[in-house]
Amino acid sequence: MAAKPTELGDAEAKPALSRRQMLRDGSALLGGVAISGVAGAPASAEGAASNVPPNIPEWMKAPGDPMGSQPYGTPSPFEKGVVKNISNKLPQYISASGRTPIGDLDGIITPNGLFYERHHGGVPTIDPEQHRLMLHGLVDRPMIFTMEDIRRFPSQSRIHFLECSGNPVYTKPYGKTASDLVGLLSCAEWTGVSLKLVLEEAGLRPEAKWLVAEGADAAALTRSIPIEKCLDDAMLVYSQNGERLRPQQGYPLRLLLPGFEGNMNVKWLRRLKAVTEPAYSREETSKYTDLMPDGVAREFTFYMEAKSIITRPSGGQKLKDKGFCEITGIAWSGHGKVRRVDVSVDGGKNWQEAALQDPVLTRALTRFRLPWQWDGQPAVIQSRAIDETGYVQPTFAELLAVRGENSFYHNNAIQPWRIDAHGQVTNANA
Amino acid sequence: MAAKPTELGDAEAKPALSRRQMLRDGSALLGGVAISGVAGAPASAEGAASNVPPNIPEWMKAPGDPMGSQPYGTPSPFEKGVVKNISNKLPQYISASGRTPIGDLDGIITPNGLFYERHHGGVPTIDPEQHRLMLHGLVDRPMIFTMEDIRRFPSQSRIHFLECSGNPVYTKPYGKTASDLVGLLSCAEWTGVSLKLVLEEAGLRPEAKWLVAEGADAAALTRSIPIEKCLDDAMLVYSQNGERLRPQQGYPLRLLLPGFEGNMNVKWLRRLKAVTEPAYSREETSKYTDLMPDGVAREFTFYMEAKSIITRPSGGQKLKDKGFCEITGIAWSGHGKVRRVDVSVDGGKNWQEAALQDPVLTRALTRFRLPWQWDGQPAVIQSRAIDETGYVQPTFAELLAVRGENSFYHNNAIQPWRIDAHGQVTNANA
Repeated sequence: MAAKPTELGDAEAKPALSRRQMLRDGSALLGGVAISGVAGAPASAEGAASNVPPNIPEWMKAPGDPMGSQPYGTPSPFEKGVVKNISNKLPQYISASGRTPIGDLDGIITPNGLFYERHHGGVPTIDPEQHRLMLHGLVDRPMIFTMEDIRRFPSQSRIHFLECSGNPVYTKPYGKTASDLVGLLSCAEWTGVSLKLVLEEAGLRPEAKWLVAEGADAAALTRSIPIEKCLDDAMLVYSQNGERLRPQQGYPLRLLLPGFEGNMNVKWLRRLKAVTEPAYSREETSKYTDLMPDGVAREFTFYMEAKSIITRPSGGQKLKDKGFCEITGIAWSGHGKVRRVDVSVDGGKNWQEAALQDPVLTRALTRFRLPWQWDGQPAVIQSRAIDETGYVQPTFAELLAVRGENSFYHNNAIQPWRIDAHGQVTNANA
Repeated sequence: MAAKPTELGDAEAKPALSRRQMLRDGSALLGGVAISGVAGAPASAEGAASNVPPNIPEWMKAPGDPMGSQPYGTPSPFEKGVVKNISNKLPQYISASGRTPIGDLDGIITPNGLFYERHHGGVPTIDPEQHRLMLHGLVDRPMIFTMEDIRRFPSQSRIHFLECSGNPVYTKPYGKTASDLVGLLSCAEWTGVSLKLVLEEAGLRPEAKWLVAEGADAAALTRSIPIEKCLDDAMLVYSQNGERLRPQQGYPLRLLLPGFEGNMNVKWLRRLKAVTEPAYSREETSKYTDLMPDGVAREFTFYMEAKSIITRPSGGQKLKDKGFCEITGIAWSGHGKVRRVDVSVDGGKNWQEAALQDPVLTRALTRFRLPWQWDGQPAVIQSRAIDETGYVQPTFAELLAVRGENSFYHNNAIQPWRIDAHGQVTNANA
């Protein structure tokens, strides 16, 4: 990508106000209703009178739900609108997707119930006792593993993001909310075994250059993985965020290739074959390639490039008042750690450096935040990620200049949001 | 606690074998069935024949579950036994508890559906639009906050454990599984606002030495928090693992006091009053105090001391064969980071240093692992945590020597597991 280098001068041109300055714009406090007394709330405190001392809300007057009403818990009924964002435009058994509602979430961990899903033959219901992984091809000892065998290997746990390569597809305008645009993205703590260790156990031969991975879904999704990645940080994972994988994420066994495009992280993994050449499967020829301006399809893209998006405020949300507004979002890079995120509140003319929430982890989502005073005027806000390789997230115009009009996947362009004078936030590209 | 200093000499006496040595005990491979051919599995491969190439398992022969069957996902039906471990011995509306099944989990993040719960008046169903937080007492500007007000403050996200102070209670024998013993323990990524910042906004007065926090449950659970903690890393949190708090964890607002005993992290938070003296509420006098040998009740314990437990293998589990067995578990300290975890496989005579999974975070669970060769003979295994202050997790005998027989809470003793010649694992204290 021919993105221009980071403009440190611009980033420094408009230094962020201190947190205290930001909160105290003019004379108004940030939020809350000031009350005069200590014991009670004045009836004039707008909307606040009924549920503060000495008034007792209804839910304190009788015992609540008993223990055990939810042996496996679920969210509050008041959060029932926070679910996966499911496209009904896609053919159910060919190319279905459910997006994470990233505009509603905080932090970097995606709860398992909202992890994005993407499949081509539905979600198989696999009995883990019956599931097998076969490892064959260019190995000294072809092997068949039960899940018990896999779990007996030394384990490791790592927090990594997963992102679909069509997130969003390379067209515009494309979607109203952050989830519509970039919701094929989630992040979890994965536990499993180093693939390198399993390959060593089977005696991988030096002539093996690729592993062909096959899933046990009805589509038998198949991808070829370069052996360098298999011998680096690749894992066979069986748990996400502590518990076993969800069916939609490959229960009982998934290939995890940190930083690689989502569909290479083969779910319901049943077969690994060590070979000298890639398989040129459907998902690496007909799909998941990008037609470049010279007419050649770019294949085997592998790593997802650095990217970021502001999730609050974002499309579909509304600023209630002018004054203090924290701008926050997520950034990530398949190539390693996020080094910096810049935010612009003037349509890309000037940029300010956002704070990154620690710990900043490799190939994981990174939460960024910037304090801002909204003056009540229309504005366009956007973020750009810079990763540890120095790569800078491009604008869509920059992408277009390199890729042309016919690309379809791997769109990591900057996403601008427009805020109108009423505080309504919309996709500035739409 | 009068625990003896860490015995580095012991830890070094029996160096861990290399990973490769560990896996290759004698001539046998770690796991899996070796197969002779490439394309197919021999029918003699025990139990493995039906689901490996060229045989196609049933779940590949028809499309799986369609997209959208679970807008908010749930675990595989094959994991239906992995639920909260709910005590039916406790009075439902006085002291109910549901434990995290830590023996079934990996990594450090607890999925929200399995986060432990503990309440005294049931779980209230609170409408977040109606919920209010009142901040009053020794502040210049008493305030009432809506949830919208709270969410407008600058946010922060941190991964921290929460642990009940009676985990387990100070009696023995006590429980069969890791969850029975130490399941009132979970860890999540929390998002919210710095309490210090909110107190600054209200103008906290210098004479304020405590905050009295009150929950909006039917028990109106009330605890007094020292002002030093409130001005340090305390938070008002509204999200756990990305999504909004679960009802059982205080939806829509909870006080989070990293490292402090669980019940001080007041759920359903509705009131904070700045005062000069603690309230001496029920939960800090009649409950959550420890009667010491001199007849004086130790009150206001605050920080949970360093602790660890082996979760695999642990009580109720069974080793199938002798040979390689990874010992893994979790360690934590209310005082900061875990510096080291030692593991003994000979009843506490010798100790080996376990590997800690990075990142090691302050006041968060830390996953530890040690490769081990089980020789098929009876053994007693146990772990001990050392935190960054140098504190060493004590044995129960050491606790007893300091605390006597009448203590009830704050039991952070080493937990030994017995493995018999059949591989069955049981509580060595029972």
